[in-house]
Amino acid sequence: MSKSIFYHAGCPVCISAEHDVIDLIGRENVEIVNIGVVKDKISEAEIAGVKSVPALVTPNGNVLHINFGASISDVKG
Amino acid sequence: MSKSIFYHAGCPVCISAEHDVIDLIGRENVEIVNIGVVKDKISEAEIAGVKSVPALVTPNGNVLHINFGASISDVKG
Repeated sequence: MSKSIFYHAGCPVCISAEHDVIDLIGRENVEIVNIGVVKDKISEAEIAGVKSVPALVTPNGNVLHINFGASISDVKG
Repeated sequence: MSKSIFYHAGCPVCISAEHDVIDLIGRENVEIVNIGVVKDKISEAEIAGVKSVPALVTPNGNVLHINFGASISDVKG
């Protein structure tokens, strides 16, 4: 896996961080996943270690929780 | 200002995030500042909006707090 994955849930904090991440690492280097919409990706995010969104999972599998928009349990609703 | 600034304080969470940030955006695109050592940069970080370390201040001035190593007040000691 060579791309990072940016998990978010559409919250204002998420959208702001998404823009920053794209500016910093380039749109072609990151897959954007909105787990508020694509609910079946929530478990994938959890397995990757995502505790809150927005979060960036790096190509080597580290999770960078960026600021704080919502916890995964909040996204589950 | 075209570089991002990565503020940290030498904590394990900071070092891990530093490696990830360098891998993601490139060493030449980020200035690394250890405010645990260079104490007179703490006020600069605070003015930029840094509340905790590690944090990345983007070229456009947004602050991305990445995971959580220590609050600024902890770094002040």
